[in-house]
Amino acid sequence: MIKPHGAETLTPLYVSDDAERAGLIKEAEQLPSITVSSGAAASAVMLASGYFTPLTGYMNISEAISVANDMKLLNGLFWPVPIMNIVSEDQLTNEVRSADRIALLDPNVEGNPVIAVMDLSAIETISSAQINHIIEKTFGTTDSEHPGVPAFSDVGDNVLSGPIQVLNYSYFPEDFPDTFRTAVEIRADIAERGWEKVVAFQTRNPMHRAHEELCKIAQKEVNADGVLIHMLLGKLKPGDIPAAVRDAAIRAMVQHYFPENTVSITGYGFDMLYAGPREALLHAVFRQNCGASHFIVGRDHAGAGDYYGPFDAQEIFDEISEDALEIEIFKGNWTMWCKKCNEIVMMGDCPHGQDDYFTISGTKQREILAAGEPLPPEIARPEVAEILMEYYQSVA
Amino acid sequence: MIKPHGAETLTPLYVSDDAERAGLIKEAEQLPSITVSSGAAASAVMLASGYFTPLTGYMNISEAISVANDMKLLNGLFWPVPIMNIVSEDQLTNEVRSADRIALLDPNVEGNPVIAVMDLSAIETISSAQINHIIEKTFGTTDSEHPGVPAFSDVGDNVLSGPIQVLNYSYFPEDFPDTFRTAVEIRADIAERGWEKVVAFQTRNPMHRAHEELCKIAQKEVNADGVLIHMLLGKLKPGDIPAAVRDAAIRAMVQHYFPENTVSITGYGFDMLYAGPREALLHAVFRQNCGASHFIVGRDHAGAGDYYGPFDAQEIFDEISEDALEIEIFKGNWTMWCKKCNEIVMMGDCPHGQDDYFTISGTKQREILAAGEPLPPEIARPEVAEILMEYYQSVA
Repeated sequence: MIKPHGAETLTPLYVSDDAERAGLIKEAEQLPSITVSSGAAASAVMLASGYFTPLTGYMNISEAISVANDMKLLNGLFWPVPIMNIVSEDQLTNEVRSADRIALLDPNVEGNPVIAVMDLSAIETISSAQINHIIEKTFGTTDSEHPGVPAFSDVGDNVLSGPIQVLNYSYFPEDFPDTFRTAVEIRADIAERGWEKVVAFQTRNPMHRAHEELCKIAQKEVNADGVLIHMLLGKLKPGDIPAAVRDAAIRAMVQHYFPENTVSITGYGFDMLYAGPREALLHAVFRQNCGASHFIVGRDHAGAGDYYGPFDAQEIFDEISEDALEIEIFKGNWTMWCKKCNEIVMMGDCPHGQDDYFTISGTKQREILAAGEPLPPEIARPEVAEILMEYYQSVA
Repeated sequence: MIKPHGAETLTPLYVSDDAERAGLIKEAEQLPSITVSSGAAASAVMLASGYFTPLTGYMNISEAISVANDMKLLNGLFWPVPIMNIVSEDQLTNEVRSADRIALLDPNVEGNPVIAVMDLSAIETISSAQINHIIEKTFGTTDSEHPGVPAFSDVGDNVLSGPIQVLNYSYFPEDFPDTFRTAVEIRADIAERGWEKVVAFQTRNPMHRAHEELCKIAQKEVNADGVLIHMLLGKLKPGDIPAAVRDAAIRAMVQHYFPENTVSITGYGFDMLYAGPREALLHAVFRQNCGASHFIVGRDHAGAGDYYGPFDAQEIFDEISEDALEIEIFKGNWTMWCKKCNEIVMMGDCPHGQDDYFTISGTKQREILAAGEPLPPEIARPEVAEILMEYYQSVA
């Protein structure tokens, strides 16, 4: 199987030894604590799960700038997105300021339980020039309207760096018992299935026929033994379909339209950054960590609005050095129903054009579903459409 | 580009120098002559076209037996099917018996013009044990009902062997000016198109949606720059669709359903042998010679009736030594319309089964077409169905 990124084996930061974890939980009760941002908590879950191997914790400013500028950790290893724990002045008590070890509290779980214990290597103040530089490099914009930028720009100016030990996976195991999986678990599952080549598909949406076909095309093109549908279970943009509905829709699609034992449906606990090309790279890193040999990067991968060109997230893979990643990329184009071909096609794979494609805007789709009408079969499988219809009617 | 079989460059036996060819035509007028079998004439066209590189002419009995037994020429090179010129006692005049060089007359062109001049290395009498052994090894049967066996068993018992110089391509250039191409021409065309990977598809039938999809799947799986649709223009079984109708139907399909400049439609002048696995190997040899990097071998390739198992023609490629061929095989399964998926699928690529597949027997298809009704869109593209309908109505 493909090796983890920059390591021989995964280095999950979850403390799996029960006694050791119990000891840490006890210790944490006595430690100064701080409620971290949702983004920092999500990073803790990714670090805990092995997805962010070989990172050991949160970056300091110089490492974050190195990553922003050169996509390299200070040790030279490829890494595309700064993983930071930034807090505001208000949150930073004197106890925390003077501590070596602190408890990180989870903002996403009621009662804010401890999610991790941190060795506080440094507390640095980041200048607005520095954070804007990091944001500009990471997102290609500092526009505060960008849906991912506020997670960096609006959380404060104190950078807490240092290694962490993670005590739980936040709300993900409880909210998504069938779907949330760590990189360690996915690797083990892939090994057990005996899959050699695995193509991973990132999704934060239910899968329509176009996505089904994109996965099937990619599977064929890379001769994959299996497809890893790997969905984001964290925070989305307002209006996005809730993870549970999406999960059900995806499971219906796989059950009805993929051969048995060719698809693994899993999810990971992270918030969308909408960082386009840089996020596509991060997505590739953690798919390599969970054992996928290939990763599908479609049009406008991890994009939002018009911030990125449709193929920026593909082209960046040609710009990084060849040894940056072991995982290979499958570059997808738009897939959609072609009225002349009478089937789903990938743009460029048939002689027809825009005028021959059958598409319905997301807004229109929501209207159709909210009205209790099924989506046309050119767009969605009936089993998928029904699940979405139920949801939209319930919120209409 | 992939190298020709057992040679650095193609060795077409067509005499391309006009003066030299004129001289040979003149010489042939004085030579003892013999009208060869349709199969031997077809072999001359294949030898002329470079498809049978590096052969220099017809095999003698010991070489034919070596090929039948071990799939090897006497020099050790891989070759799967004996290429022989067998004639009957009646045809063998005393002049031919005593000649060093003879003229071979074409049975398939009116007036039986000279097709080749042959250096007569040997005239051997083949015993019925020998020819039956060759037939058994080549066809897996000696059944005279087998549609390919008579071309070996019913042509006589005199084996004429030796190198040939070929003067024309028989009736193929005149009957199929847009489609008949030599291996030399196809190689040049592939080079001009700049295609590196080319997947070749053998057909003797019009292409239905299932065949279209098989080509598209293969193209994706091997990441081919182009598809070479390479059709047999020679003799078929009675009842098969005439080559001209098939040609028109295939061109309509490509025009309407493949992106521009991704398909080359060509044909070669050879008769079907219906030799199943051995013929699949021969098909692969001459696709390598025309510059294809990959060759599609579907179910029951080059088969007839129940003489071969559905995957025999694929499995034989696993049995030959690894260095026998440079061309790679794409192993296809059945493709057909799945009523549940609402699209063409390759068997095994969806979770549904036989009961969910939409198929119509060839007999039923002919009835539908002869009645002037279109084939259902699940079976054929409307542009293809119309061409076939016109033909079947014209012969009904």
